[in-house]
Amino acid sequence: MTIIQVINPNTSPAMTETIAQAARSVAAASTQIVAVSPRHGVPSIEGHADEAIAAVGVMDLVKQGKAQGVSGHVIACFGDPGLLAARELASGPVIGIAEAAMHTATLVATRFSIVTTLPRTLIIARHLLQQYGFTHHCAALHAIDLPVLALEDGSGLAQEKVREQCIKAKQRDGSGAIVLGCGGMATLAQQLTQELGLPVIDGVSAAVKMVESLVALGFGTSKHGDLAYPLQKNATGIFEHLN
Amino acid sequence: MTIIQVINPNTSPAMTETIAQAARSVAAASTQIVAVSPRHGVPSIEGHADEAIAAVGVMDLVKQGKAQGVSGHVIACFGDPGLLAARELASGPVIGIAEAAMHTATLVATRFSIVTTLPRTLIIARHLLQQYGFTHHCAALHAIDLPVLALEDGSGLAQEKVREQCIKAKQRDGSGAIVLGCGGMATLAQQLTQELGLPVIDGVSAAVKMVESLVALGFGTSKHGDLAYPLQKNATGIFEHLN
Amino acid sequence: MTIIQVINPNTSPAMTETIAQAARSVAAASTQIVAVSPRHGVPSIEGHADEAIAAVGVMDLVKQGKAQGVSGHVIACFGDPGLLAARELASGPVIGIAEAAMHTATLVATRFSIVTTLPRTLIIARHLLQQYGFTHHCAALHAIDLPVLALEDGSGLAQEKVREQCIKAKQRDGSGAIVLGCGGMATLAQQLTQELGLPVIDGVSAAVKMVESLVALGFGTSKHGDLAYPLQKNATGIFEHLN
Amino acid sequence: MTIIQVINPNTSPAMTETIAQAARSVAAASTQIVAVSPRHGVPSIEGHADEAIAAVGVMDLVKQGKAQGVSGHVIACFGDPGLLAARELASGPVIGIAEAAMHTATLVATRFSIVTTLPRTLIIARHLLQQYGFTHHCAALHAIDLPVLALEDGSGLAQEKVREQCIKAKQRDGSGAIVLGCGGMATLAQQLTQELGLPVIDGVSAAVKMVESLVALGFGTSKHGDLAYPLQKNATGIFEHLN
Amino acid sequence: MTIIQVINPNTSPAMTETIAQAARSVAAASTQIVAVSPRHGVPSIEGHADEAIAAVGVMDLVKQGKAQGVSGHVIACFGDPGLLAARELASGPVIGIAEAAMHTATLVATRFSIVTTLPRTLIIARHLLQQYGFTHHCAALHAIDLPVLALEDGSGLAQEKVREQCIKAKQRDGSGAIVLGCGGMATLAQQLTQELGLPVIDGVSAAVKMVESLVALGFGTSKHGDLAYPLQKNATGIFEHLN
Amino acid sequence: MTIIQVINPNTSPAMTETIAQAARSVAAASTQIVAVSPRHGVPSIEGHADEAIAAVGVMDLVKQGKAQGVSGHVIACFGDPGLLAARELASGPVIGIAEAAMHTATLVATRFSIVTTLPRTLIIARHLLQQYGFTHHCAALHAIDLPVLALEDGSGLAQEKVREQCIKAKQRDGSGAIVLGCGGMATLAQQLTQELGLPVIDGVSAAVKMVESLVALGFGTSKHGDLAYPLQKNATGIFEHLN
Repeated sequence: MTIIQVINPNTSPAMTETIAQAARSVAAASTQIVAVSPRHGVPSIEGHADEAIAAVGVMDLVKQGKAQGVSGHVIACFGDPGLLAARELASGPVIGIAEAAMHTATLVATRFSIVTTLPRTLIIARHLLQQYGFTHHCAALHAIDLPVLALEDGSGLAQEKVREQCIKAKQRDGSGAIVLGCGGMATLAQQLTQELGLPVIDGVSAAVKMVESLVALGFGTSKHGDLAYPLQKNATGIFEHLN
Repeated sequence: MTIIQVINPNTSPAMTETIAQAARSVAAASTQIVAVSPRHGVPSIEGHADEAIAAVGVMDLVKQGKAQGVSGHVIACFGDPGLLAARELASGPVIGIAEAAMHTATLVATRFSIVTTLPRTLIIARHLLQQYGFTHHCAALHAIDLPVLALEDGSGLAQEKVREQCIKAKQRDGSGAIVLGCGGMATLAQQLTQELGLPVIDGVSAAVKMVESLVALGFGTSKHGDLAYPLQKNATGIFEHLN
Repeated sequence: MTIIQVINPNTSPAMTETIAQAARSVAAASTQIVAVSPRHGVPSIEGHADEAIAAVGVMDLVKQGKAQGVSGHVIACFGDPGLLAARELASGPVIGIAEAAMHTATLVATRFSIVTTLPRTLIIARHLLQQYGFTHHCAALHAIDLPVLALEDGSGLAQEKVREQCIKAKQRDGSGAIVLGCGGMATLAQQLTQELGLPVIDGVSAAVKMVESLVALGFGTSKHGDLAYPLQKNATGIFEHLN
Repeated sequence: MTIIQVINPNTSPAMTETIAQAARSVAAASTQIVAVSPRHGVPSIEGHADEAIAAVGVMDLVKQGKAQGVSGHVIACFGDPGLLAARELASGPVIGIAEAAMHTATLVATRFSIVTTLPRTLIIARHLLQQYGFTHHCAALHAIDLPVLALEDGSGLAQEKVREQCIKAKQRDGSGAIVLGCGGMATLAQQLTQELGLPVIDGVSAAVKMVESLVALGFGTSKHGDLAYPLQKNATGIFEHLN
Repeated sequence: MTIIQVINPNTSPAMTETIAQAARSVAAASTQIVAVSPRHGVPSIEGHADEAIAAVGVMDLVKQGKAQGVSGHVIACFGDPGLLAARELASGPVIGIAEAAMHTATLVATRFSIVTTLPRTLIIARHLLQQYGFTHHCAALHAIDLPVLALEDGSGLAQEKVREQCIKAKQRDGSGAIVLGCGGMATLAQQLTQELGLPVIDGVSAAVKMVESLVALGFGTSKHGDLAYPLQKNATGIFEHLN
Repeated sequence: MTIIQVINPNTSPAMTETIAQAARSVAAASTQIVAVSPRHGVPSIEGHADEAIAAVGVMDLVKQGKAQGVSGHVIACFGDPGLLAARELASGPVIGIAEAAMHTATLVATRFSIVTTLPRTLIIARHLLQQYGFTHHCAALHAIDLPVLALEDGSGLAQEKVREQCIKAKQRDGSGAIVLGCGGMATLAQQLTQELGLPVIDGVSAAVKMVESLVALGFGTSKHGDLAYPLQKNATGIFEHLN
């Protein structure tokens, strides 16, 4: 039994549910998805400050997951908050959904587009493209100009805007694939893939398969060198639980 | 049932067997590995000319595999010969083993080293690093300075040299993972991972899991844009079978 | 007497003729142009699969040319199919026309634009820009959205579209030079250069002069290291003639 | 009066003192240095997990500093933890000491070397070089292979190792300047600059001058676009104080 | 007393005055600004040939300034003509205004736009972005399509065009800051910063603060390695004064 | 008749002679080499200040050459001083010898090494590699640590050191070609090519063939856009002759 801890780094239960649903829809029969979200944090992640808060929640959950013996971890926010910190703490693999979606896009197309929420999140995607090596594989980035939680307001407006931006991206960018730039868009990928006739990639499901694969290959996060366990520190105050 | 066509692009049966073994060792229970090699080609691939020949064999086999209804394809030579051509021909996913190993390395470590066969193959790896976006993730490249088929001569010499270069890479490069740069090294990865205490990555097994994952996600190669099926051409002579 | 083998990698005689004409129009008096095309292959090259087929034809012709004692080789398709493979086989210089045109553009202008045929060929140009180091020297890429052989249909439509795209490139891109992205456009360069008042560069003629220059300098392809002759292999079947 | 909040992101008072001393040694007469460290955190920062914890402390202190009306902020840890998050929260300028030292080095030399503490921190420096644009300006990175707090143990061993690495860097790297890669090395810069005869750059003092300069120029952090104040969120639990 | 030699590399007195005014408006009380321009040169700098002429004037003035004991030097033309040559000659710091403005922009925003004069100067800015490492930090470049001296014709037309391009840049580029690409625009920055609500950066004032900072830190130009004083040469003719 | 003006940017007659000899040894029968050096300047070019002085001499000579109706220009100093300025002034092609040698190297090998004079000139080569796009094609740079004029002292010591560095580069760098990094080394290339068995490239001869080729192709420097003739300026004093 492979147990994958899927971490929603924000505190919105509806988002956790969306993410869990996307994760379970692709998990192998022998995989158990444990969807969690931090006790303390922010309800949505739309900037660097939100990400810094979320990173601590991610670390806390990774530590818990490790203690519970999970096989690997998914960080289900498109900025991949706390990814390298989580990798230091984990023994198993840790995959961010931006990372998963971007990697996947380069495997099925020569260039891809990204559709995200607020314009201010574009810089986070740009920095990740650079860090992961995919700056030249990304043809264009688009924002629907609605906040993350608009995806959970039940109106369908944000979903329709995502669809519009995907169609625009297909027509104008010359891209072979589209990456959805928010965990809250996870459940849209399958239908858009059908409608548009090209891979529309949700990072949550992609990350679940990556963790399953790494576990099957016998790989956890390398503990040699840069990502070795953190040196023992006496973290104080609100961080004591991270010791 | 997922059927993965694992293509050894050279004509050496012993190499096909090594590759098949590595592929089967990690395939899911519901995955069938079909290991094939081209009817016409070269017994080993150690340069650009060998690769160009191999690419045609790969295309031929991908066409056959597609006709037989396989789910996806692995190109099991570290230069990923014919990768983009194969993607044009295929409907399912096509993964090269250099691509698979390099992607995998970036998921478990911040930087990786490569150990390959002859020094003249290093340039192929360098070009792939650039194409895939991982130039800055690769700390160093090493060659054992033995030809590919030395891995199949039964003496164990090549295997020992691989081991030595991996140990050297671990000690000197500051890398968290090592990528094995030849399909013929596929069966060494597991033991070296154990011995060295860091992920030593074989691209064959990694590619099999990537194909399984993409199939599970519902993604084939994008047929929108750059990788659409080739335009109908009247290929002549020895290429007629590619029509 | 310098003999330059100008290889049309596709099997269309009209294209071979266009290319030969462009080559002869600039060759030195002491240079003999031998225009050839492969016995087996595809009539036009508009994607990666076409290129992989063409690469084998190029290799075959380079071997023949070398046996006949030619001084150097030009690969007259804008994707430069089989360039590094051909360099391994050759003793003399081998120049691709994309390479020749791009290099030339950087010598007469700070930035250049590319005008090519089908949009799906743009990715090939992008990859070559990256491989040759000219990504930042290229201001924009344009496609006329007509297949290669439209350049040989006698209607003049494709030629007019090339002209339109060149004018557009001059007006909008801020480029000082334009690179024609298809061997079939070779004979248009001179007139467009006159009409537009900036260098419109055909790679065929540029490549011929580069081969002449390298021969005059006493340089063939380096046989030290990466591009040494291929190791002796027992190529089988349809590739036997490449032994 | 310009008030600069110099944030030691770790909880070691000795380190705060070292940093404060370096800051005060270069501050203008009209500048007041307020050296602070987080109530909760880790005693030293030597990896990504430590950085993630420190980033929250930095945010908390930036908010406090802003409420107190400080003119600008320095993040005095070489990984620049929480830099972009802090910029979102701040109205004044926020400068990280890695950023400050790297920028400064490029102003007085064509290439520079970095000397840091533990080898595992090198990856953080590499990522910052890439993010700031200085990958090609850095000739080499060196680690003394001692933890951060060895700089505060009173033995002088770490200081001597820093000196040795600086001498080695001067002799071997061809660099015109050396960047000290830890806030705890701040007070070594002046003497090493004298001894070695080239700029040995401490980021703390450099950052103080950058904040002073930006304040004098009338610039705070841009509130247009990516670094606008965070959207109002209902941060919960241990992050409530960040609302 | 810090004495900063602010060099207008062109021979237009009105431009020298504009630059001096901008420099003095931000200089510390203890800083004396000495604004100079070359005896021989060109009245404006709008291309590479103008820059090459200006570089000699800059060198001459730097030598004079050094002889007079100035603390540092500013090269107040956006192409930073003669920057590295001046650094070889100087003992104190030398800062170009393009360099100063670009560095400053990256400290207060994640991405910036540039507004310059004639389109032909854009390539100079592009080359500097690459040399300084900021290619990926620049979102877009704009030209007002008026010559440099239009900024000194008293009509206000050029100033209005700068304003228009800045507004356009703010609206379309997603940039958090704007860099003014000409020394003649120096006095516009403050008002545009107010009007637009984001940092509009003049390099003259930024450079003055950088020189002040470097002097306060005790750093001149590194004399170890690449920027050591020029080897003694017997410069002849019109360059004799440079010996 | 093609007339190529080969400009030695320094004032040493012996160097002019060496360069002229290299140029004539490869020039076509129909090409006339006019070797010139500036009336005013420095006897050797070993840094940025020397280059800035040399650039003015180059401009002056290019203007003269253009007035005399030469077909094109070669700037025969490895730093390519004044290259873009000269291109603005010229109607014909202008080629720098570093540019020529680097381009040539990439046509005959996948990677190359550079052997130059003083270590302080390496940074100039590095900057040119970046500007021309060849950073990733250069495996290593070496300096013989002797000044330029040691190549003209008749002792043969510098020549022997060049030979030693070339041998070292061949053995250690994995390069297929070596670029000689000084005009004064021009006459060494042919013999070293023979002795070492790989292309040892002198930029003077390479540049002559490039100019001949561009002239034969009908291309001068593009006068559209960035490299258009300089705007009419009233250059004063020692620069009056440049009007």
